[in-house]
Amino acid sequence: MAAERDIDDLPRNAANYTALTPLWFLERAALAHPARASLVHGALRYTWADTYRRCRRLASALARRSVGHGSTVAVIAPNIPAIYEAHFGVPMAGAVVNCVNIRLNAPTVAFLLEHSSAEVVMVDQDFFSLAEDSLRIIADQKKGSFKKPLVIVIGDHTCDPSALQDALRTGAIEYEKFLETGDPEFAWKPPQDEWKSIALGYTSGTTSSPKGVVLHHRGAYLMSLSGALVWKMNDGAVYLWTLPMFHCNGWCYTWTLAAICGTSICLRQVTAKAIFSAIANQGVTHFCGAPVVLNTLINAPPADTILPLPDDERARLQARQGIRYVGLEGLDVVDPKSMAPVPADGSTLGEIVMRGNAVMKGYLKNPKANAEAFENGWFHSGDLGVRHPDGYIEVKDRAKDIIISGGENISSLEVEKAVYLHPAVLEASVVARADEQWGESPCAFVTLKDGVDGSDEAAMAANVIKFCRERLPGYWVPKSVVFGPLPKTATGKIKKHELRAKAKELGPVRKSRM
Amino acid sequence: MAAERDIDDLPRNAANYTALTPLWFLERAALAHPARASLVHGALRYTWADTYRRCRRLASALARRSVGHGSTVAVIAPNIPAIYEAHFGVPMAGAVVNCVNIRLNAPTVAFLLEHSSAEVVMVDQDFFSLAEDSLRIIADQKKGSFKKPLVIVIGDHTCDPSALQDALRTGAIEYEKFLETGDPEFAWKPPQDEWKSIALGYTSGTTSSPKGVVLHHRGAYLMSLSGALVWKMNDGAVYLWTLPMFHCNGWCYTWTLAAICGTSICLRQVTAKAIFSAIANQGVTHFCGAPVVLNTLINAPPADTILPLPDDERARLQARQGIRYVGLEGLDVVDPKSMAPVPADGSTLGEIVMRGNAVMKGYLKNPKANAEAFENGWFHSGDLGVRHPDGYIEVKDRAKDIIISGGENISSLEVEKAVYLHPAVLEASVVARADEQWGESPCAFVTLKDGVDGSDEAAMAANVIKFCRERLPGYWVPKSVVFGPLPKTATGKIKKHELRAKAKELGPVRKSRM
Repeated sequence: MAAERDIDDLPRNAANYTALTPLWFLERAALAHPARASLVHGALRYTWADTYRRCRRLASALARRSVGHGSTVAVIAPNIPAIYEAHFGVPMAGAVVNCVNIRLNAPTVAFLLEHSSAEVVMVDQDFFSLAEDSLRIIADQKKGSFKKPLVIVIGDHTCDPSALQDALRTGAIEYEKFLETGDPEFAWKPPQDEWKSIALGYTSGTTSSPKGVVLHHRGAYLMSLSGALVWKMNDGAVYLWTLPMFHCNGWCYTWTLAAICGTSICLRQVTAKAIFSAIANQGVTHFCGAPVVLNTLINAPPADTILPLPDDERARLQARQGIRYVGLEGLDVVDPKSMAPVPADGSTLGEIVMRGNAVMKGYLKNPKANAEAFENGWFHSGDLGVRHPDGYIEVKDRAKDIIISGGENISSLEVEKAVYLHPAVLEASVVARADEQWGESPCAFVTLKDGVDGSDEAAMAANVIKFCRERLPGYWVPKSVVFGPLPKTATGKIKKHELRAKAKELGPVRKSRM
Repeated sequence: MAAERDIDDLPRNAANYTALTPLWFLERAALAHPARASLVHGALRYTWADTYRRCRRLASALARRSVGHGSTVAVIAPNIPAIYEAHFGVPMAGAVVNCVNIRLNAPTVAFLLEHSSAEVVMVDQDFFSLAEDSLRIIADQKKGSFKKPLVIVIGDHTCDPSALQDALRTGAIEYEKFLETGDPEFAWKPPQDEWKSIALGYTSGTTSSPKGVVLHHRGAYLMSLSGALVWKMNDGAVYLWTLPMFHCNGWCYTWTLAAICGTSICLRQVTAKAIFSAIANQGVTHFCGAPVVLNTLINAPPADTILPLPDDERARLQARQGIRYVGLEGLDVVDPKSMAPVPADGSTLGEIVMRGNAVMKGYLKNPKANAEAFENGWFHSGDLGVRHPDGYIEVKDRAKDIIISGGENISSLEVEKAVYLHPAVLEASVVARADEQWGESPCAFVTLKDGVDGSDEAAMAANVIKFCRERLPGYWVPKSVVFGPLPKTATGKIKKHELRAKAKELGPVRKSRM
């Protein structure tokens, strides 16, 4: 049709089409607010002009060592300036940044570095031996064919200087020295194609080998802008890094902060005192409150803590995970077999699926996992949830965490909610335990609050069970309660697979004699 | 290289790649805030649930009449709800929305409707005769080959109902009746390709035929998010429509407001009283202050006006146009021949050029204009400017507005700035006038403020010239001053081409006898 040709037949050209990438945000921040603080870490303070120059130095120094397109640079560091800089400097050289969870052990880090073919490892001084141990494991496996990555060790003025000195004696190059080999005016180039990869991050691999999740420049750009919009992070916001940057690139807030010319307050260790101090003294406007972080705040000693707590109704509504993010075009709860949406009745369980530009590019070198994750043109989250009549979605459980008792599904999350309401409970996690009568029944693992007398465990367990019975259907009530600290991942998620293993060790719940 | 293949070889699929389009914002707004006000117009108030249903009705009603891909729908209306709805309803049917400047005359509107091959004309009741006159002109030109577009007339409860009745007697269909023929649950489809066109708007065509500027879904999406970010339009912002929606789709704020689930306060006519009333009574958080709007406010009667005015230094800095928008990846001032950036010295003039996704797709059916506009892979703005040492850009003049006196360039804007400082001056515009001695010299057209006695024009002109002499280089000082109202475009831009014609009528400035 002539009209269609006319109105749509205007080709792309260099003036009206640019690959989306968050790297431009940095160039703009340095232009718009060169003197505004970009990063604050202890006594260290960088401006956006500094950060742009440092990131270009990093890109240039990498490029001079032939690190570029197709290369992966691993970063093993807590929330310090260097890991922030890697989010820009590495892709400015054309390479992919892979931030590694610092709480992993050496064999797992070895798996990651090998799987990602890391050519460079940037490592914080206090995690240097983790990196060295990991590389030694790979060297032992690969023998002669092992090419050791370039190791760059990052000093931190807030830490013991002797650890840095020890690392440097092994021949590793110091990060600041490495930056000096780069040109602060380096003419970096944006990607030609916005589908090119910018970052790689690994799943925690609780049940299998960690999977490498790949993010592209387009997705990083769109997530950055969406995050600013949804969380009202306006120009000049001051963001406190309670969230590890190695966790999904800090949900892309690394790049968001450049888009809004905001300030990052680094936080090497997340403590209630450090958080309250930053809020009180550094003008913090935003931080991410993962459950573990909020729990730290709520249960801090009174001298540290002044926080308004939500009332019950508000808490109930806020517990729902809500609707799709701007930038995520599809979000639904479906029957995993038919892919038909479940009714919006607040009770029919289905799998939560999503589609849109915020979804990962795919898993690295894992076609089987990709085929499963993207089956039927949706990303399968593996989360079970319901749709409420108002369209809001609520996560009920991980598909693998559901407890099947007497043929009925029990949401472990719903049981946990009840246990959490008990005044003596600090943290709780509920998993399936084998049950002679019902196949499975809920087993609660509980950490008590400081100051609670839990010496009579049997009495406390009975008390918790009684408490739950007043609030839950009978078959949902935990039949067993185990006290002690809960194993957690680096991001504060409770490792349910370890608790399942413990529940297995306990053996099945015996048939009731009644 | 194997590594490159690995890290980049993950294809797009339906789960991780979606065409960018602002249409999704509306679906989300209706889900997130169904009961929040989307549009307020006089006594009329729509919620986001209403707006989504009405837009789907519009899309469905259009689709039922075979208006879809390749079709253009023209809208001739001031800032009323229907023009807002057209920004979603029309592209939801796959068609392109063309909002027409309501201050154009019938021959020009006829040119637009013919050039865009409009299949539908939605027209506000008070502009019905303009639409009918325009269509009659086309019919006369095309004779038998003319296929009259579907004419939909939009009633407005704030206007005289008889105008609507008159229009309906001609056989036009009423907008609300038309909506009733559409399905409020219409399953609209997003574009397959984000490069597809979403909107068309015409330049004012001051010096040639109007050019049809085409916008694509990708650009509309990115501009919408960028606008929210840059102007801190957060969730629930209340936006007052002082800016015509027909002007560049209201700078994409039409779509931004859906992205942030904000509220549009419609404004059929921009008066100081209406603006202050909306700010005072409707919780307005944002509005666009084009010079003509701000001037309306500043010069309103004291009873209407309480506004803090910027101090001089702030005004000087704010007069600079600044740096690139988020979403515009390139902005520079270059020598138009060599395309080399001018030095950042605040004085060397060059052409302002830009590139990025916020740049138009191109001009409709105008390959010559496209070739010129996109020459060398940059969009050529036709504006002359300078780069300041801090990287900020300041517009000095339209290329065609520069005055060349004795071989020297004079920025007409700089001369205007000086004239504006004169306490008796309400508005001023400076153009070149032929000059026997210098080739050209500045001629100022001036409107005096209410209450100023301008009866002795010669004395007032001498006073303005004296005032300028104290502030400008001698050859920049206007040699002639003409008093009276200034001709303006629909968006409040002064029509300099008309002033140039007037200056031509005045004849050349005679050689000074001194």
